[in-house]
Amino acid sequence: MTAPFVARTATSAPAPGTHALLTERVHGESLAAPFYVSDDFFDLDLDEIFSKSWLFVATEAEISEPGDYVTIAFGSRSVIVARDDHGRVRAHHNVCRHRGARLLTEPNGSTGTIVCSYHSWTYGMDGRLEFADAQAPGFDKSCYSLRSVHVRTIAGLVFICLADEPPNDIDEVAGIVEPYLAPHRLAEAKVAKQTDLVENGNWKLAMENNRECYHCGGHPELLNVFFPTWGYSSTDAIPSRLAPVFDRYRRATAAQIEIWDRRGLPYPRIEQLDTRPTGFHIEREALDLAGESFTLDGTAACGRLLTDIPEAQLGRLSMHLQPNMWLHVTSDHALLFSVIPVAADKTLVRTTWLVHRDAEEGVDYDLDHLTGMWETTNRQDADLVALAHQGISSPAYVPGPYGPSEFQVEAFINWYVTTLRDRLGVPSSHVTDAASA
Amino acid sequence: MTAPFVARTATSAPAPGTHALLTERVHGESLAAPFYVSDDFFDLDLDEIFSKSWLFVATEAEISEPGDYVTIAFGSRSVIVARDDHGRVRAHHNVCRHRGARLLTEPNGSTGTIVCSYHSWTYGMDGRLEFADAQAPGFDKSCYSLRSVHVRTIAGLVFICLADEPPNDIDEVAGIVEPYLAPHRLAEAKVAKQTDLVENGNWKLAMENNRECYHCGGHPELLNVFFPTWGYSSTDAIPSRLAPVFDRYRRATAAQIEIWDRRGLPYPRIEQLDTRPTGFHIEREALDLAGESFTLDGTAACGRLLTDIPEAQLGRLSMHLQPNMWLHVTSDHALLFSVIPVAADKTLVRTTWLVHRDAEEGVDYDLDHLTGMWETTNRQDADLVALAHQGISSPAYVPGPYGPSEFQVEAFINWYVTTLRDRLGVPSSHVTDAASA
Amino acid sequence: MTAPFVARTATSAPAPGTHALLTERVHGESLAAPFYVSDDFFDLDLDEIFSKSWLFVATEAEISEPGDYVTIAFGSRSVIVARDDHGRVRAHHNVCRHRGARLLTEPNGSTGTIVCSYHSWTYGMDGRLEFADAQAPGFDKSCYSLRSVHVRTIAGLVFICLADEPPNDIDEVAGIVEPYLAPHRLAEAKVAKQTDLVENGNWKLAMENNRECYHCGGHPELLNVFFPTWGYSSTDAIPSRLAPVFDRYRRATAAQIEIWDRRGLPYPRIEQLDTRPTGFHIEREALDLAGESFTLDGTAACGRLLTDIPEAQLGRLSMHLQPNMWLHVTSDHALLFSVIPVAADKTLVRTTWLVHRDAEEGVDYDLDHLTGMWETTNRQDADLVALAHQGISSPAYVPGPYGPSEFQVEAFINWYVTTLRDRLGVPSSHVTDAASA
Repeated sequence: MTAPFVARTATSAPAPGTHALLTERVHGESLAAPFYVSDDFFDLDLDEIFSKSWLFVATEAEISEPGDYVTIAFGSRSVIVARDDHGRVRAHHNVCRHRGARLLTEPNGSTGTIVCSYHSWTYGMDGRLEFADAQAPGFDKSCYSLRSVHVRTIAGLVFICLADEPPNDIDEVAGIVEPYLAPHRLAEAKVAKQTDLVENGNWKLAMENNRECYHCGGHPELLNVFFPTWGYSSTDAIPSRLAPVFDRYRRATAAQIEIWDRRGLPYPRIEQLDTRPTGFHIEREALDLAGESFTLDGTAACGRLLTDIPEAQLGRLSMHLQPNMWLHVTSDHALLFSVIPVAADKTLVRTTWLVHRDAEEGVDYDLDHLTGMWETTNRQDADLVALAHQGISSPAYVPGPYGPSEFQVEAFINWYVTTLRDRLGVPSSHVTDAASA
Repeated sequence: MTAPFVARTATSAPAPGTHALLTERVHGESLAAPFYVSDDFFDLDLDEIFSKSWLFVATEAEISEPGDYVTIAFGSRSVIVARDDHGRVRAHHNVCRHRGARLLTEPNGSTGTIVCSYHSWTYGMDGRLEFADAQAPGFDKSCYSLRSVHVRTIAGLVFICLADEPPNDIDEVAGIVEPYLAPHRLAEAKVAKQTDLVENGNWKLAMENNRECYHCGGHPELLNVFFPTWGYSSTDAIPSRLAPVFDRYRRATAAQIEIWDRRGLPYPRIEQLDTRPTGFHIEREALDLAGESFTLDGTAACGRLLTDIPEAQLGRLSMHLQPNMWLHVTSDHALLFSVIPVAADKTLVRTTWLVHRDAEEGVDYDLDHLTGMWETTNRQDADLVALAHQGISSPAYVPGPYGPSEFQVEAFINWYVTTLRDRLGVPSSHVTDAASA
Repeated sequence: MTAPFVARTATSAPAPGTHALLTERVHGESLAAPFYVSDDFFDLDLDEIFSKSWLFVATEAEISEPGDYVTIAFGSRSVIVARDDHGRVRAHHNVCRHRGARLLTEPNGSTGTIVCSYHSWTYGMDGRLEFADAQAPGFDKSCYSLRSVHVRTIAGLVFICLADEPPNDIDEVAGIVEPYLAPHRLAEAKVAKQTDLVENGNWKLAMENNRECYHCGGHPELLNVFFPTWGYSSTDAIPSRLAPVFDRYRRATAAQIEIWDRRGLPYPRIEQLDTRPTGFHIEREALDLAGESFTLDGTAACGRLLTDIPEAQLGRLSMHLQPNMWLHVTSDHALLFSVIPVAADKTLVRTTWLVHRDAEEGVDYDLDHLTGMWETTNRQDADLVALAHQGISSPAYVPGPYGPSEFQVEAFINWYVTTLRDRLGVPSSHVTDAASA
């Protein structure tokens, strides 16, 4: 049993007002300002959301060999994710058990043991204390293993949970999404590029931004292949200017289904965004133009496809999982995004591009061509998130209404509010509809 | 009716101690340290002073054509001040009614409509929502106009008030000061230069600094034309070293009064600094040397005078208005200052130089010559304000006594404390004299 | 009598939780995280430790002539330490008694009077107000002397205490340590170099770091002359790898004692680290190799020794004094360290090298050779302190056990906790042993 978390400050009780805001949240519209801008909610988000949910932190491709590790920080919580000598993925708090020094300081690397720079306490990759010099008789090394963190891999994706008791629906979720993901063999891929972009806005705004394409007019490059009809629930709701695109979308989908069926790739959309602790959504969709990849003409950016399936035109497999990840997989590469809160108004968005392990840069793919569209899209999103944060910071901000195509934003917010309420024991109010508020 | 302001954080109750400090404030000496250095008082100043008083934000010269706008921020409150299609000056909160994004991001510009970068919601310059794509049936655009801000122009100066119910003495104040200001035709002028200087001190220290000339020894350039006798209430109180200057001041004043009388320019000093919600002070004074302008020899810096009055020697018209502005007008140009709190220890001072609309840079005036004296003076003041803030931040600081020539500092502080007490419902103590404390 | 300190913010009561953490502190292991990382404890440390203890702030060598001064800041408390016209060392708060401006802005200098930049109020070096222009009749200058700070010199070291009632054991401590220090004539030395290094960690971590040599493996340069056996209480406890070093240490000590005895230099170790308000420790120890100085081969770095004692091989005299200093004196130079808290996670470590007043740079010593070893060691320590702070900031940190050689770290922590408890009136818990916790 690990010891309970130590509060980061001498006082950690949520400020008055937090509970009331949770109780009174109105369905159908954006959250009240303090959820996004106050330090109280930021601390609460770290303590109750990020410390108690399953978090996407890396791909197995980043730690393919024993001794490989990455470090990742959620607030002041730094975690080592490593492959141990037996090839198992392990996660440990990056804190020496002696006087607390940070152990590994690089974002990633490879090592035989974890040696503290301060007094040379030395741990195995499995976290056991192997060496501590000059201790009194009776000192018991077995009491000073690194504090471990729960870890779970799903089809090559590595998730951790900082809580002692992680949400227990992860196996169920894995059971649902693995058949979608496994055929793409992400565990065997290699990292082509990884970027860290700090967005000047709350992490929830970064997530909301990704949950709708109502703003896709701001992404001219992406719109070459991404159907802007995404998120519209019926033909009725589609703005008339999108009617021709919708026709194209229907034809592309029909053609794509034929291929998916032929190759046994599951494609029904599953939405369990706000109905379980580990809320998620998965879908397979056609892409526009050549339909193969995130490039300006839709053709594959990497000549060596991820798998042996001969068709390059597989559209995209897309998933997201609360609270901090989404991904897109095409025939030639995979794109993984993780959202890491830094401050109430600062969020790190990490993007990882995977290609086949044997794909060679300069031969099978041009790196700028492979990553260009989403690097541009990420920058555009960062600007939008910053504008949202700035405006919401004004006392003049009042929550506004979600339109029909923003239903997944609403689902994210529902999950978030429900999760906080459950973990804090806060009831919901009787009146929760925008219409009746 | 607009909705009430949303608190910026989950907790917004003033901290204990604030009320006691307000009650116990001692007349005749500087404020206790927390008024200047604590975040609690900074938040209170934004909420109770800057959100409920009339604030000077721009000149009409900056938004002369329909579609012209400036944006200005008080803390996280960004406001758009614009001229609408009918030529009226309007003010709106710079926050989209959809999901709250900041709308206009430039400090000034010209536009036909206000389009949100996020989801293209589009507003007219009058604030009405004109377009919102893909909404559900029943969506009523008229419910989502930009939240408006009260705006009032006085002789070319633009004031806003963020409160629902602004102080209602603004018309009375306008009635008093307009006869002084109107002859200088500021509404028809043009901006020669505008500078933003961030001072490392509390906004009240920036205001106090401007309310006395006891420190004018630190302004050797300004003292060429600015009589350092300012603020001394009688010949008795004037330090003997200033006696010759005082003689020169009396002769210059007599000569100036003759001109003011001839041209019908009102000049009696009016001081209502701490006797009304919109406290102000206005006066017309002689300048030293040539008496025409803020230049080293006192001659006009702009060959094209602001008005048709033939005399260049008009001395200076000076006004200040609580809580955030002062100005000086000479025959050839006008200088307007606005004080914008940024943090407890950071204040933006914006200086705007106006000249006649037809004056040409390089022909009628040299920009450095026109602005040099006050740019230098502003930098000197910034240094003094920073020193004051540093010293007051020490727990060893104790409030010190105001001398006779600092009576307008005292009046500013009186206005500030009285205004806070009134708005918070805090009584004053019985013992309020420095002498009896 | 001086007025009581004014709180820096409107609220200054310690947060709930602080007292409980003080009560529950467990002996034998590092402190709980909030002691190091919370702003509450940082404020408490400034208010209760740094404002009420004797602090090392300078050497007399830095202010050898009347009018010489240094300024030093503990948080927002800036203090002037100066030599007055009668040659006495004085200390004043660096705050004008008029409207609070910071008076002296340079880290050190020489001046005849202290003139406020704002309104020219002028003080003597003894703190008396000598001039204030244009005051009302009845203004009494004698009421506005600078607020004084207690000051005490010990063998050339200058200590101040910000409290009205300083700990009264300073005379007793001076009586003990002066016989050790006086023979080295530090009051007559000169400053060869002074460096300020900001460490990214709490000030207590900077102190703890200096209180043990368990981490000396991280100081390969220092280990040339510093015996890494330091801190091991008996031959039993010494790791076997250190056995040969320990032999060398015993031989060097025996040789050194002969010299110390011959020259009448006291050398018994005195440890009163956690048994009195002004806790301290003093010792004289041999150095390895030539045994003369902190250089790679142990030979003196300065040809002109500090005193007339002919032997260059004097080993080191080392002292530290709670809460903020330590020093080393060899035959050729002295090294003084002061620790100045800047923020919960930032600490300034000032290092001063003294040599004989007549020693000439380039002739008697090469500056890089003189200072190189400790400049390197300081940078290594700064890295270790930063790692410790980072790790402790994680909620996963739990206090860990001190080994036998870390007994002076424990003594520092004991002193700190006991002092805070005493000053705040907090009881200790019955259960305080790591073993029984």
